[in-house]
Amino acid sequence: MSNYQKINQQYKGKDIISLQQFDTSSISQLFETTKHIITQLNTNTIVPYLQNKLATLLFFEPSSRTISSFSASIKRLGGVTIEYQNPLETSSAVKGETFEDSIKVFETYSDIIIIRHFENGSALRASNVADIPVVNAGDGYGEHPTQALLDMYTIHQRFNTLENLTGLIAGDLLYGRTVHSLLRGLSFYKGNTIYLLSPKRLMLPEKDVKEYTKLGLKLIQIHDEEDIPKNCQFWYWTRVQKERFAIQEEYEKIKHSFIITPNLLKNQGNKNMIILHPLPRVGEIDPRIDSDPRAWYLSKQMKNGMYIRMALLSLITGAL
Amino acid sequence: MSNYQKINQQYKGKDIISLQQFDTSSISQLFETTKHIITQLNTNTIVPYLQNKLATLLFFEPSSRTISSFSASIKRLGGVTIEYQNPLETSSAVKGETFEDSIKVFETYSDIIIIRHFENGSALRASNVADIPVVNAGDGYGEHPTQALLDMYTIHQRFNTLENLTGLIAGDLLYGRTVHSLLRGLSFYKGNTIYLLSPKRLMLPEKDVKEYTKLGLKLIQIHDEEDIPKNCQFWYWTRVQKERFAIQEEYEKIKHSFIITPNLLKNQGNKNMIILHPLPRVGEIDPRIDSDPRAWYLSKQMKNGMYIRMALLSLITGAL
Amino acid sequence: MSNYQKINQQYKGKDIISLQQFDTSSISQLFETTKHIITQLNTNTIVPYLQNKLATLLFFEPSSRTISSFSASIKRLGGVTIEYQNPLETSSAVKGETFEDSIKVFETYSDIIIIRHFENGSALRASNVADIPVVNAGDGYGEHPTQALLDMYTIHQRFNTLENLTGLIAGDLLYGRTVHSLLRGLSFYKGNTIYLLSPKRLMLPEKDVKEYTKLGLKLIQIHDEEDIPKNCQFWYWTRVQKERFAIQEEYEKIKHSFIITPNLLKNQGNKNMIILHPLPRVGEIDPRIDSDPRAWYLSKQMKNGMYIRMALLSLITGAL
Repeated sequence: MSNYQKINQQYKGKDIISLQQFDTSSISQLFETTKHIITQLNTNTIVPYLQNKLATLLFFEPSSRTISSFSASIKRLGGVTIEYQNPLETSSAVKGETFEDSIKVFETYSDIIIIRHFENGSALRASNVADIPVVNAGDGYGEHPTQALLDMYTIHQRFNTLENLTGLIAGDLLYGRTVHSLLRGLSFYKGNTIYLLSPKRLMLPEKDVKEYTKLGLKLIQIHDEEDIPKNCQFWYWTRVQKERFAIQEEYEKIKHSFIITPNLLKNQGNKNMIILHPLPRVGEIDPRIDSDPRAWYLSKQMKNGMYIRMALLSLITGAL
Repeated sequence: MSNYQKINQQYKGKDIISLQQFDTSSISQLFETTKHIITQLNTNTIVPYLQNKLATLLFFEPSSRTISSFSASIKRLGGVTIEYQNPLETSSAVKGETFEDSIKVFETYSDIIIIRHFENGSALRASNVADIPVVNAGDGYGEHPTQALLDMYTIHQRFNTLENLTGLIAGDLLYGRTVHSLLRGLSFYKGNTIYLLSPKRLMLPEKDVKEYTKLGLKLIQIHDEEDIPKNCQFWYWTRVQKERFAIQEEYEKIKHSFIITPNLLKNQGNKNMIILHPLPRVGEIDPRIDSDPRAWYLSKQMKNGMYIRMALLSLITGAL
Repeated sequence: MSNYQKINQQYKGKDIISLQQFDTSSISQLFETTKHIITQLNTNTIVPYLQNKLATLLFFEPSSRTISSFSASIKRLGGVTIEYQNPLETSSAVKGETFEDSIKVFETYSDIIIIRHFENGSALRASNVADIPVVNAGDGYGEHPTQALLDMYTIHQRFNTLENLTGLIAGDLLYGRTVHSLLRGLSFYKGNTIYLLSPKRLMLPEKDVKEYTKLGLKLIQIHDEEDIPKNCQFWYWTRVQKERFAIQEEYEKIKHSFIITPNLLKNQGNKNMIILHPLPRVGEIDPRIDSDPRAWYLSKQMKNGMYIRMALLSLITGAL
């Protein structure tokens, strides 16, 4: 994995494939740019750093949230898009074209490519073919770097640091793509303690526990909501992913193992914490929580997704 | 239904959910704005009242006509769009997300939301969740306010008034969404007489007859083309909607009950009238009528749809 | 076929339906405009000849390559688009609307219509209905004029002439739409000799051989790769189209009859030639060829598609 091109404070022209390309310095730079964008959006609905640029969005996997977040990011930067969802079904791929040829074709028209794919490593393959920047919008069980960056930005926005934090990550820790990315991101910073709450069937794999521990995270596995310590600064809750279960009944039994209710929040929470969720949620957070000022998932966190993508796109195209 | 927020000459920031929010004064204001837009389009292809604004079009029901009319309206106002058709099939909704959460997500990226949905009341639900303006582009059997407004504008364009008119509404008066909206709209004005021509199976429901009569319309039900009075100022013809019939044969038997032919126009029409149709038509109007100067359905009426939407969007975003 | 409106050096306002509308003079004009656009794109990502124009793309047949090439062309000209793929499935057409009515509706919103359809002659039908320019992006087994023009432009780019050339066209000469268009285009110029290499099952129909011969092309049919003369200036390779075979086994037997391998290129090629392919390819060109400087299919040829479309759109809208 060390073959990813490091950013090293030079975003311009880089592909964004994996969180492993980042370090605390390039993340700081990204966060500063994000703040700059947010400031400008206070007085303008469009900040034209992608003016006259054409971005192609290739989503080989259904999506509404991520594609619309990227699409809005590009348009709020004054850029234009070409967008294809499920190109496998409606395109040359049906006729038997290789993935690499498809990428070359779309590269022809574009200044940048955003790709989501159902196979691990697809974004890297695309970046190896294309001479223009490629951004990974999620590939298989693999990486989804912009999601991790927006989660980290949101936590940083609240506590002004990503060091010496205590947090909880709950739900599906086995399949959850965002969980793995966030843990890796937090491991860049020192002194972080993360409680991991999951059904036994969906625990973080042992090899990941080892890896992130080695990278400096303190990980504590718990299996009961009552074991959530009261000093957590954030709760990062995730959905149990139905699409990962072959047997429907197994999913039904497990899906609502852990739910944030007003009661849980009262008993185990504290007044300074924030609650995050990568969304969509399917019942893991009681809607009565939504109006709580600590509920950042439907407001700040979501908006930060657009902001961080705007910053990233401005940086890799060299506009900022 | 009295809970709809009245416009009261203040469009800016308002949701547009139902025709019931309007009155003769707000309609006049809208018509004036529409005329202003049309005048400007005589010399420009774009009038930039939505410059730098991002509109999200969420169409939970298949559509090509309405979505393209709204999309063109926004683009001819210099705005940009994010568009999703059938988001239920290709999105987070598949994963079990609630309608309310979906709206909150799209609100994050948008300055305005245009929604079409297959369920009555969906647009109102969306507007209750979102802090940005929501426009109803048709929900279920319910409302489709911009269609009624464009129909009214077209009649007004011809006769320079919406009072003391005599008109004919023909076809499916039971299920036709546009019929109900137009009747309501005409009931805002005094002295209107409407002939209703339909197969007995598709008559305007008795409760609606009562309601609109109470509101001031004079309604006269007829069941034979020969009973169309010769002094009608407009004929508003509608399609019998196949999708409302469980039994196909019943549809086939009834679908062409009433057809505008050159002969019918000659026998029952007059030289000052106009012919309208919400489209699509499926045989109710003989194509030989298309070149008649009284046939406004494929030309003026359709174009007015774009114009009235441009005016409405300019008003609720505060640009005009 | 003589009923197509000739361009005669007057592009403005013309429909582009068939290659038969062109002659050497109008093609020269188009090529000059294309060069002009390319020059400008060296210093700008957008050249605003379609600024404030709205183009509607109606693709009644699945496509990703052609629709994205047109969409990018329009956007790189500063124009905006409304795009519908498979409108038959998601639109008023489902409700039984005629093709002609659909075109009239979309015309309402648009400054130009780009159409692809599965039926021969559809683009011409659309152009007969619409008062705005209509561009054929491929209809049935019929015409695909912009593809032929980009192929010709690419050959011209290399040899600075379209006269007195020797070339090879290989693959499916029976069904290949692009093959027929290219042959017609080359027949406008004198002194051209074309070798035709195909399985016997997929030979150019006898009537076409006669027609193009009568128009001035020298056609030589061969059936063995070893018979390719070494002095060809271009190889135009095509895909055997799976979708044209009722019996799958027949397709499998024939699909890889002829493949460009490094060996074939070494034995039958020459150093000045170029290799073209309309794409997608499904194995007819060994990927090891891709890095050869003579391999123009994934780079220059593809880019020229966007350029020639930009030039054509600029001309018919009167911007250039």
